[in-house]
Amino acid sequence: MKLETTFRSELGLEARAQAEDHLDTRIWLRLLACSTDIEQVVRRQLRVRFHTTLSRFDYLAQLERHRDGLRMSELSRCLMVTGGNVTGLTDQLVDEGLVERTEDPSDRRVWRVRLTAPGRKRFAQMAAEHETWLSDLFAGLPMNDKRMLFQILGQLRSGLRHSAHD
Amino acid sequence: MKLETTFRSELGLEARAQAEDHLDTRIWLRLLACSTDIEQVVRRQLRVRFHTTLSRFDYLAQLERHRDGLRMSELSRCLMVTGGNVTGLTDQLVDEGLVERTEDPSDRRVWRVRLTAPGRKRFAQMAAEHETWLSDLFAGLPMNDKRMLFQILGQLRSGLRHSAHD
Repeated sequence: MKLETTFRSELGLEARAQAEDHLDTRIWLRLLACSTDIEQVVRRQLRVRFHTTLSRFDYLAQLERHRDGLRMSELSRCLMVTGGNVTGLTDQLVDEGLVERTEDPSDRRVWRVRLTAPGRKRFAQMAAEHETWLSDLFAGLPMNDKRMLFQILGQLRSGLRHSAHD
Repeated sequence: MKLETTFRSELGLEARAQAEDHLDTRIWLRLLACSTDIEQVVRRQLRVRFHTTLSRFDYLAQLERHRDGLRMSELSRCLMVTGGNVTGLTDQLVDEGLVERTEDPSDRRVWRVRLTAPGRKRFAQMAAEHETWLSDLFAGLPMNDKRMLFQILGQLRSGLRHSAHD
């Protein structure tokens, strides 16, 4: 009994999902719990290993994907981690030599940002470690479950985009 | 080609997952994208429909689960939504008559908090609507996929708890 109580309180938000709750609500609470837990580990590791934040990692990751650079407005749309002020982040990363501002060839009044060579190298180091953290976190799932999870989340995501457009 | 670019940029963080990325990283980005999207909808709906925040909803939900109330320290552990200061939230919710402070029977120096009758009623209204938002958001998933998703996320979560304890 005591054990069960402890266990429940460790589950945090998910404890809210009572037996009679709708499956959708229970999925959401479980999804949120997993996401929050993983995010906390990733944030901590980024801080400890690279003295950096998830916002900065996210910023560099988007630029890595777009070798020609991005306009600030495009970059803002791509970023998913909130809490980072794009202009402020840009100033910091430019100061550190990881990112550079360039003129947009089609409109000289507009700035684009892109990774510098040291920025690309730095991001590659972080991304490689990031992968090992996630491998550890997902180690408890058999490969078949991982494939299934990836596939179902993809379907969920495309349903969410669809409903967001309604 | 143009379409594909637009599509990718809508995917946000997930766009980062290149074909050669490790499956674990791709699952994580998809999980984060789904979680962020759903959270945004829930936050918006709570604001529009109930003039409230996810932190307050989470707070009330935990008390709903614990009818005898919780010590402030227990409540802090249960809450998963960050950004809410527990003492500040308590003051607000007590002022609004949704929550009350009581003495802890086993230690009179310690305060517990619990829902008032109006608080319980208010939470029930919010929880009922919350369920309908989630039903809409998950409408694109067949029931079999939902059951599978729920089961795999449960396994992931218990693996995460395990690795967090190492």
